[in-house]
Amino acid sequence: MNPALLSISELRKALAAGELSAGEITEHSLAAIERQNPAINAWTQITGQRMRDEAERLDRQRREGSSLPPLAAVPYAVKNLFDVAGYSTLAGARLFQNRPPAQADAWAVRQLSASGALLSGMLNMDAYAYGFTTENTHFGATRNPHDLSRIAGGSSGGSAAAVAAGLVTFSLGSDTNGSIRVPASLCGIFGLKPTFGRLARSGSHPFVGSLDHIGPLARSTADLAAVYDALQGHDPADGFQASQPTQAVSALLEQGLGGLRVGVLGGYFQQWCDDSARDAVARAAKALNASEEITLADAELARTSAFIISASEGGNTYLPALRNSPEVFEPLSRERLLAGAMIPAAWYVQAQRFRRHFQQQVLPLFNGIDVLIAPATPTSATPIGQETLRLNGVDLPTRASMGMLAQPISFLGLPVVSAPLRTAAGLPIGVQLIAAPFREDACLRAAAALERMGIAQVQAVNLE
Amino acid sequence: MNPALLSISELRKALAAGELSAGEITEHSLAAIERQNPAINAWTQITGQRMRDEAERLDRQRREGSSLPPLAAVPYAVKNLFDVAGYSTLAGARLFQNRPPAQADAWAVRQLSASGALLSGMLNMDAYAYGFTTENTHFGATRNPHDLSRIAGGSSGGSAAAVAAGLVTFSLGSDTNGSIRVPASLCGIFGLKPTFGRLARSGSHPFVGSLDHIGPLARSTADLAAVYDALQGHDPADGFQASQPTQAVSALLEQGLGGLRVGVLGGYFQQWCDDSARDAVARAAKALNASEEITLADAELARTSAFIISASEGGNTYLPALRNSPEVFEPLSRERLLAGAMIPAAWYVQAQRFRRHFQQQVLPLFNGIDVLIAPATPTSATPIGQETLRLNGVDLPTRASMGMLAQPISFLGLPVVSAPLRTAAGLPIGVQLIAAPFREDACLRAAAALERMGIAQVQAVNLE
Repeated sequence: MNPALLSISELRKALAAGELSAGEITEHSLAAIERQNPAINAWTQITGQRMRDEAERLDRQRREGSSLPPLAAVPYAVKNLFDVAGYSTLAGARLFQNRPPAQADAWAVRQLSASGALLSGMLNMDAYAYGFTTENTHFGATRNPHDLSRIAGGSSGGSAAAVAAGLVTFSLGSDTNGSIRVPASLCGIFGLKPTFGRLARSGSHPFVGSLDHIGPLARSTADLAAVYDALQGHDPADGFQASQPTQAVSALLEQGLGGLRVGVLGGYFQQWCDDSARDAVARAAKALNASEEITLADAELARTSAFIISASEGGNTYLPALRNSPEVFEPLSRERLLAGAMIPAAWYVQAQRFRRHFQQQVLPLFNGIDVLIAPATPTSATPIGQETLRLNGVDLPTRASMGMLAQPISFLGLPVVSAPLRTAAGLPIGVQLIAAPFREDACLRAAAALERMGIAQVQAVNLE
Repeated sequence: MNPALLSISELRKALAAGELSAGEITEHSLAAIERQNPAINAWTQITGQRMRDEAERLDRQRREGSSLPPLAAVPYAVKNLFDVAGYSTLAGARLFQNRPPAQADAWAVRQLSASGALLSGMLNMDAYAYGFTTENTHFGATRNPHDLSRIAGGSSGGSAAAVAAGLVTFSLGSDTNGSIRVPASLCGIFGLKPTFGRLARSGSHPFVGSLDHIGPLARSTADLAAVYDALQGHDPADGFQASQPTQAVSALLEQGLGGLRVGVLGGYFQQWCDDSARDAVARAAKALNASEEITLADAELARTSAFIISASEGGNTYLPALRNSPEVFEPLSRERLLAGAMIPAAWYVQAQRFRRHFQQQVLPLFNGIDVLIAPATPTSATPIGQETLRLNGVDLPTRASMGMLAQPISFLGLPVVSAPLRTAAGLPIGVQLIAAPFREDACLRAAAALERMGIAQVQAVNLE
């Protein structure tokens, strides 16, 4: 038995019954990572000693009679932009390889440690979180567990591959323009991008302050919800966090779809994808009794604006380093960061103004609908190194276009679950389940309904 | 008797006693404006018919037995960037002279109308609200009622001059970087810049969305507080308004200083002003038992950042018009708007990032202090046309530098009352009374204490 393939509640039962200890789970996990990670290149750092220490503490507390914390002995790993005490936070960048080790864990990692989860290490990503393919020139490409010749998606590619390969129960990623949803879609797992401002980001390396989100990836909606619940809470150090009460969602999943009204995003979201994506949306829509098709008039403008904001803020963050040491930069991003820094301020301001306008246009939709369905990616995973993908007779750059259906949604700040379906060709593809701000419960309930019906499901992978 | 010289409560008593009608107040007001405005050039539009209609309605309601609304028959006027139904909103700009008339009043004007106040017209300002002198090339300079050869300050120069001249009981202005406090200081009246986000701005022509505030100017703290109270309330159309409960402050003024702890801003704020400003601060500090001197380490950087944000957002707003019709632009601002639009986005982003950092540094100060005192302007009013003012042996551009002590405070979003003192030379100068966010009550109580002690006072003006 591979304990990392158990769900959080199964792990819990096994622990409670004394069938497994945290120490055994850890050794199984670390051994499997050691054997299988070379095939997928998901880990950039394995934190074996820390994981063993965490497990030992948990087993000792168990022996002393403590009750099980909510994520007791659940193995996980985090995108390497989260601070982990004692390690340099890479954010996928050679630039940061020699930075001083983090003094403390990121807020999210502290929350998970406090909940009993066991950290096995840090995961590969596009450099600076800028990209949708995790083809990292310095750390190598992460490979899709379903087909090792294909991309895992990005920028949280390591986070998705590690979960899809069954080497951790869940992982943490970050999503600025699609960086959780895209790899979740291409690797065939569940991913949650919460409402902008919902989860504290302190101790995660920023890419675009006004668009960055953090969130979990997992193999079931129950696990996704349990991790999300552990990540909630107010962090006074996070100036961006919304002052919104937490809402534990795990217990809500069994409500099923209930009275949720479901619609499908048409127009741009149906046009800029292939038949396999359209088919996945159609199956999800049918299963959820989607009643109407809704069009967001300015979806393309939203994507353009998100690009401008990302390039400007990314350019701002990296401008001093670009001046001093351009040679250590990811060649796939160096020029666009430089160009981003020099975008005229009037464009950036216009993009932020449009964002408020677009939000005002879109949010009233949720008076009549609870969940909107759209593809998470235009296609399933493309081969590593394939620079373009062809849609509607146009060759689009893969690295930017894999996020084109995710980007307008995060621009709005809406919560989204990406739920995995399977294409006729056998590769996974995700559908976005999108709700009104702070209605993560609606996204998760819709995803759980698809999962229960067998429409959304995670395919097993065997890398041994 | 000139009814516009009465306070709001005196007007109320006279109305209640039947000694004055709204109609009489209106005719007095309009006649005085007609006689005296040519000397000060404060009004760009007199709305005589509207004022008479409002007065007539009020007198009719009175005859029918209605009770007096809170600002019954109080004459006022607004900076010409507020929408007034039926008139083109100028924002000081020739560019807007032929724009379609506003369909409805601005939110603030609606609030005041609903409170019974009588609108006599719209007031001169620096074009686009960009400037601190109200030397408007197209509409002419507004003249300081205390010395007609001197500037009234800006950009709400007409708003300050109209009140100082005794032609209205109060006025509305806007303050992005000091545009209420600077003219209040130079014209010797009280001005309130509320907390950023406190008052709804809908229907006021924007200059810098992320820094603009609206607020009242008046000849006493009681009047200032009464108008501020009438301006509070939630406007669903304003995406920037803070979700903060209203706090009626009029009734709080009689508490006096109470236990408020007062400090003085040192460093930059003591350095970049002349002896008359330093002396005014010293008198206010002594009267309020100021206990300590506090230094804001990065005040100059705050001013720089406010400049970058203002130029960038201003440039964004006017870029399309600058492309199409540069010839109608205020020559004093055309080039800086163009330059602002082309500032690199990385600078703008950095300025906004610094703003959050600076707020985090400064806000904890208010755990130990309630009110901070600083000069509102570096000097009292300079002659119209004098391009520079000399401070510390440096010639600074008057149009930008009159706001140099106001700008870092609005950058923080803090509420401020500018209270009028008198220099040895006989000209007025203001001190800023600065409090923590949403503590307008503390600013107003400190100002009321200075007023009661005769330290802050409005000097009468006779233009007849």
